[in-house]
Amino acid sequence: MKILFENIRIPEEYGFADEHIFLMTDGEFISYIGRERPAEFDRVIDGKGNLLIPGFYNSHCHAPMVMFRGFGEDLPLWRWLNEKIFPAEERLNSENVYISSKYAIAEMLKNGIVSFSDMYMFENSVAKAVVETGIKANLSRSLVSFGENATIKGDWRFNESVEWINQYQNANNGRLRMDMSIHAEYTNVEGYIREVAEYTKDNNLRMQIHASESESEHIKCIEKYGKTPIEFFRDTGVLSSPTTLAHCVYVTDNDMDIIREHGAFVSHNATSNLKLGSGVARVPTMLQKGVCVTLGTDGAASNNTLDIMREYQLASILHKGYNRDAEATRAFQMLDLATVNGAKSQGRNDCGKLVVGNRADIVMIDLNAINNKPCFDTYCTLSYSANSSNVLMTMVDGEILYHNGEFTTIDIEKVTREFDYVCEHYFD
Amino acid sequence: MKILFENIRIPEEYGFADEHIFLMTDGEFISYIGRERPAEFDRVIDGKGNLLIPGFYNSHCHAPMVMFRGFGEDLPLWRWLNEKIFPAEERLNSENVYISSKYAIAEMLKNGIVSFSDMYMFENSVAKAVVETGIKANLSRSLVSFGENATIKGDWRFNESVEWINQYQNANNGRLRMDMSIHAEYTNVEGYIREVAEYTKDNNLRMQIHASESESEHIKCIEKYGKTPIEFFRDTGVLSSPTTLAHCVYVTDNDMDIIREHGAFVSHNATSNLKLGSGVARVPTMLQKGVCVTLGTDGAASNNTLDIMREYQLASILHKGYNRDAEATRAFQMLDLATVNGAKSQGRNDCGKLVVGNRADIVMIDLNAINNKPCFDTYCTLSYSANSSNVLMTMVDGEILYHNGEFTTIDIEKVTREFDYVCEHYFD
Repeated sequence: MKILFENIRIPEEYGFADEHIFLMTDGEFISYIGRERPAEFDRVIDGKGNLLIPGFYNSHCHAPMVMFRGFGEDLPLWRWLNEKIFPAEERLNSENVYISSKYAIAEMLKNGIVSFSDMYMFENSVAKAVVETGIKANLSRSLVSFGENATIKGDWRFNESVEWINQYQNANNGRLRMDMSIHAEYTNVEGYIREVAEYTKDNNLRMQIHASESESEHIKCIEKYGKTPIEFFRDTGVLSSPTTLAHCVYVTDNDMDIIREHGAFVSHNATSNLKLGSGVARVPTMLQKGVCVTLGTDGAASNNTLDIMREYQLASILHKGYNRDAEATRAFQMLDLATVNGAKSQGRNDCGKLVVGNRADIVMIDLNAINNKPCFDTYCTLSYSANSSNVLMTMVDGEILYHNGEFTTIDIEKVTREFDYVCEHYFD
Repeated sequence: MKILFENIRIPEEYGFADEHIFLMTDGEFISYIGRERPAEFDRVIDGKGNLLIPGFYNSHCHAPMVMFRGFGEDLPLWRWLNEKIFPAEERLNSENVYISSKYAIAEMLKNGIVSFSDMYMFENSVAKAVVETGIKANLSRSLVSFGENATIKGDWRFNESVEWINQYQNANNGRLRMDMSIHAEYTNVEGYIREVAEYTKDNNLRMQIHASESESEHIKCIEKYGKTPIEFFRDTGVLSSPTTLAHCVYVTDNDMDIIREHGAFVSHNATSNLKLGSGVARVPTMLQKGVCVTLGTDGAASNNTLDIMREYQLASILHKGYNRDAEATRAFQMLDLATVNGAKSQGRNDCGKLVVGNRADIVMIDLNAINNKPCFDTYCTLSYSANSSNVLMTMVDGEILYHNGEFTTIDIEKVTREFDYVCEHYFD
């Protein structure tokens, strides 16, 4: 379907500053951006002077964990995991993960997220929710291993991962992709990690992984292996495949160079890192060094939302204050972190920018909202004023999935009712 | 008018955890909270299981600065003030301040703010907007002084301040109160400050002031006077009146003791302090020492919104991450900062808690919103999940001023149209 947006603004980088222009989609792709009104289209949407931007990419998530939102608060990472989350996860099953994933996807679409990277268990249930809702995602079955002789051969978790990759890779016309995932250095043994890394490279897969989230993780890795987690992942072959490294709060300058040289991606999860007392990632230095930094919400159990605009806004102000330097980051830099960099981290190179020929992953932001006036510069509005309630529309591959409070592929009342039931009876 | 809320929750501290109860207002006050349905009322509102909380107090604001939202970004405090804001403020007048204030008040009411403390120029125009809209406020004309011999005698700014205090003190049945304000130590001379402090005490007024916002301000004060800004304000008599100290990013442990001993209030403005590169106030230490900490948005030129829930949520996670301690602050502590502590800072001692006999300053929070499910604990939901779009209703002194997207005292289309005109023609 050809959808024409008229009377819209787009960010200044595209050369139409302060103008009300036209953007048209042609099935899956952006087919026109300009000053002239196209003659042929199937549907027209009056943008009312609002802003179209590339859709948001949430580069690190555990979608099903919405069911643990607010469960086990005000605890540090280690206690939160061991005392609260890991025991609660014993009750996960295909059904409650499926329902929670659908709920999480609704929350993400409402917040302008067109694609997310996920690592968790029961990712086949997440895959089902992804395909049904039409959102994009790179899903991965998070792998852990125990004992010095752990091997992928016969490992049920690894077998699940391979099975689901084979089952779902490029499903829904490529909107769904399947990655490999090593949960973290501290939850795995070296031999197992080497085997997974080799399999990932041999099969041209991408990798998702937690890295240097807390200081103790970083220090313990150095004590154990004589190297940082990033050095360890380089030396075990993990970084030989395109890898998204979640958190990276404690990476060294040399780690950053390794990340850049290997073309790996950092997922900056500012809210989760603050809330769990982990710290503040050195994003300005990463950006100076040319590291590709993306934004992630992490799971709703540690965030406690899937609100990527909150991450965007927090990332835009946090590093200024933390470094006592108002110029530590600039507003015009930040949109890329929330959009095209995330697309790259998922290997989606025709996404993340509003250019003709790119996939039509588009979000409309309400510039008429009370909190967004006046708007001198759209990057500043996005970084400092806008919030997720200003998302008016979320389009994925040319298909509108959320518009003016309505979901087109999700029966939100039914999903909410089912999710309420899961939450109420989870510990029965 | 007696308004009955049924099917509502209130925070756990009131002893009705997890129950759907009734709350009734009787004109200006809360007249009933309990399990039995009152028989007589004029209007009933079905709370649908949502949460009633005390309304938010914004303890530091420059409301008219909404017109400078997004003007002069990514600059440190000193350059931002001297290169951008001070020159722009030369064009302020009664009319553009009045229109901007009305717009700012709409933004605040929408975000659940029932009262704000303001320091700026043309506060008589702000006062007009406050009275017309029905919000509460403590307004103050910000005083600056130049030259060693500066005195309040014959000073036009001081005279304005006194005139407006006399004109508006306790207007609109006490919803409007007028305070004194010294802009800051670094924008005033000692003799003038002493005179203002004396006048404030002699007339039983309250004081609003910027203090230790940036490190350079703090250091320069020590170089000039041999004491910190807080010590300086104590020694000049400022702290002899009830004083709200905005920012306090660089206060010492001894400063905190002085603040507590003098019954002064700290207005924590986390977003503004981050965005201007000022730093992070030591809120956990202040709380440990028993300092009364309140929350403020600052003006929209440095925030860039008047979204107190964003401040609430940021204050709830920032200090955990900054101090690498997930227990640095606890969710159950934070609601008081956003509500009753702010009320105290304005001298409104019958406000800020949901108890019978208190003024009915009440906000309804949407617990059915997608981002607030599940809700294990209302304090955690407020600190970590909720956002300003979850504000369903804002009531001031028993009068509903905002409900389900509609303003009852503000013609929002007209105000927006006038505000747009002010912004578009400000630099003509």
